[in-house]
Amino acid sequence: MGQLRGTLAEVGEFGLVSALAERFAPGDDDRVVVGPGDDAAVVQVGGGQVVASLDMLVQGRHFRLDWSSALDIGHKAAAENLSDINAMGGRPTSLLVGLGAPPDLEAAWAMEFADGIAEEAALVGASVVGGDLTRADAITISIAVLGVCEHAVVRRSGARPGDVVALAGRQGWADAGFAVLGRGFRSPRVVVEAHRRPEPPYDAGPQAAELGATAMIDVSDGLLQDLGHVAADSGVAIDVTSAGFDIAEPLQAVGAALGVDPMRFCLTGGDDYSLVATFPSGTELPQPWRRIGSVLESGAPGTVTVDGAEYEDPGGHQHFG
Amino acid sequence: MGQLRGTLAEVGEFGLVSALAERFAPGDDDRVVVGPGDDAAVVQVGGGQVVASLDMLVQGRHFRLDWSSALDIGHKAAAENLSDINAMGGRPTSLLVGLGAPPDLEAAWAMEFADGIAEEAALVGASVVGGDLTRADAITISIAVLGVCEHAVVRRSGARPGDVVALAGRQGWADAGFAVLGRGFRSPRVVVEAHRRPEPPYDAGPQAAELGATAMIDVSDGLLQDLGHVAADSGVAIDVTSAGFDIAEPLQAVGAALGVDPMRFCLTGGDDYSLVATFPSGTELPQPWRRIGSVLESGAPGTVTVDGAEYEDPGGHQHFG
Repeated sequence: MGQLRGTLAEVGEFGLVSALAERFAPGDDDRVVVGPGDDAAVVQVGGGQVVASLDMLVQGRHFRLDWSSALDIGHKAAAENLSDINAMGGRPTSLLVGLGAPPDLEAAWAMEFADGIAEEAALVGASVVGGDLTRADAITISIAVLGVCEHAVVRRSGARPGDVVALAGRQGWADAGFAVLGRGFRSPRVVVEAHRRPEPPYDAGPQAAELGATAMIDVSDGLLQDLGHVAADSGVAIDVTSAGFDIAEPLQAVGAALGVDPMRFCLTGGDDYSLVATFPSGTELPQPWRRIGSVLESGAPGTVTVDGAEYEDPGGHQHFG
Repeated sequence: MGQLRGTLAEVGEFGLVSALAERFAPGDDDRVVVGPGDDAAVVQVGGGQVVASLDMLVQGRHFRLDWSSALDIGHKAAAENLSDINAMGGRPTSLLVGLGAPPDLEAAWAMEFADGIAEEAALVGASVVGGDLTRADAITISIAVLGVCEHAVVRRSGARPGDVVALAGRQGWADAGFAVLGRGFRSPRVVVEAHRRPEPPYDAGPQAAELGATAMIDVSDGLLQDLGHVAADSGVAIDVTSAGFDIAEPLQAVGAALGVDPMRFCLTGGDDYSLVATFPSGTELPQPWRRIGSVLESGAPGTVTVDGAEYEDPGGHQHFG
C-alpha cells in the first residue's frame, strides 16, 4: 500500500480516510452490510444486524478542560458517538468507553466524566457495557457504540435528483458557542451550553428511516462539508436554500456581537450533531424535519451550493490541515 | 460519585476500574448479559448475542516506534483486542479502528499499520468495518471488536473448588522479548518477535467454551495477576504448579543471559495473550491446553499461590503505578 506519499498533514484527513476505507473494503465478507466510509458500520451478527461506530476525542482538540466540566465532556463524548447511530436511522443500545489519562488527573474527574456518559446514554436507553483505562499524556477518549435499526439503514449514498434536503435539530449553535468562548466570553449562555453539551435530535434518525429517507449524515464538521459527503457518495449536486433557515435569536446576537453573518454558523458549524437527510420529493416532513434545500436534477456530482452559488466561506475543518 | 479521592496514580488503575464498573453496572437493562468487568461485554442485540470489547494502546507505553514496525504494531493492536473475544470463548467478526496521530507522521506508516490490523484480523476471518482518524500528539490506537459465541460465554467468575487450571498458548515469550529489547539486544529473535507480534491461541477460546470451561481470562498483564482476577471474581484460591510449565529453550537462554529465573517470565509476563482457564476436574484436556494448577478446596478467596506459597516477585503492572 505504498501509494500514499508524505505526512498525514500533506495527505490530509480525507485522503487518508479514503485510502484506509479502500484498504479495509469488506471484500468477500458477506456479514458486512455497510463497511468503512459511512457514519457507522452495519454487520450481520448472530440473528440480526448491528450498527456500530467508534470515535476518538483528544484533549485540546475536541474539548478543553477550562471550557468544559468533566460532566460536560462525558455528555459531549457520548452524544457525538450516539449521533453516529442516529445518522444511520438506528437506536443505540450499548457503549464501550476507553479513557487514556495522565496519572495526575483527579479520580473524581474520571468519575464525573463517567456520570456524563451514563446520563447521556440514558437519554436513549443505552448502557455502558465495558471499556478500557490506560495512561496517556493527554486525556484521550474513545467510545464505540452499538445499536439496532428497526427499518432499513440510511446511508450517505442514496440521494437522488429531485429529492428534498431536510434538517433536524439545532444547527450552528455549538459553533456560535465556540466562537464566543474563543473570544473569552461566557455568554449568551445558551450557545456556550450548546457547545459544551450538544443536544442531538435522537428520535429524528429512526423517524427519517421510517419516512423513507434516501440518504442521511450527522453534522459534525460543518453542514456544507458534511452535505458534501452525501453529494459525493450519492453522485449528485445539492443546493441549500438560505431562506430555509430560521436563524435563532442567540445566533443573531452572537453574529452581531462578533461581526459575523450568523448564517455562517448554520452553514459551516459542526458539533451540534444535527441530522441532514434527503427524502423523495413529495414526502410530508413532520417535526422536527424542515426543508433546507434540494438535490438538483443536474449539476456537478459532489458539489453543494447555497442559493445556486458556491459559498465563499472555507467552512468546516480538515483534521490534519 | 465523589467517593474517590486523589489522583489516578493514588487511586490506582484497579481502584478506578472497579469504581467505574460499579458506576456502569447494568441495572435494569436486561439486554446486558455481561457488563463491565470481564474481558468483553455480552449484549443482546437484535436476534442474538454480541460479544464486544474495546482497548486502547498508547505510543511509548504499549509500543515503541524504534522497537516495532508499523506492521508489527497493527498486528499487535489487533491481536490484543481479538484476544478479548477469545477469552470469552467467542469468535471475532468485526473491528472498528481508531487512530490518533501527529500530523507529521508519514501516511505510509498509517497504511502499513492498517495492513497489520487487516492481516491479523484475517487470521480469524474478521474484517475492519469502520473507525476514526484524529490528530493527537502521540500515536494512540483504539480498537473495538465484535464477535459471537457458539457456546455459553465463559466469564472470570465461574471457577469452583476442585477445578483444574489450564493454559493455552505461549506464555512468557513476549516478556522475555521485552527484557531483551530493554537491554538493547535484538536476539533471541524468536522472543523479540513474540513481543512484536503476539500469537494468541485463537481457537483455544471457543474450544474451552465447548469443553465446559468454568472461568477464563487472557493473560495481558501477567499470568499470576490475571489469574488473581479469576480467583477474586470467583471467590476461590488458586495454586499454580511450577512443574506444569515446560520452559522453552529461548526462555532458558534469555534467563541465563540476563541472570533471571526464566520461570519469572512465565509467571509474571503478559502480552502473549495466552489463555488461562478453569475446567471441572476430570475434564480431558486436548491440545493446546495443559494443566498448570488447580482451584483449591479451601484458602483465602482471591489469592494465587505457586507450589503452595506466595510468589515473591511483584509481577505484572498497574497502569498508573
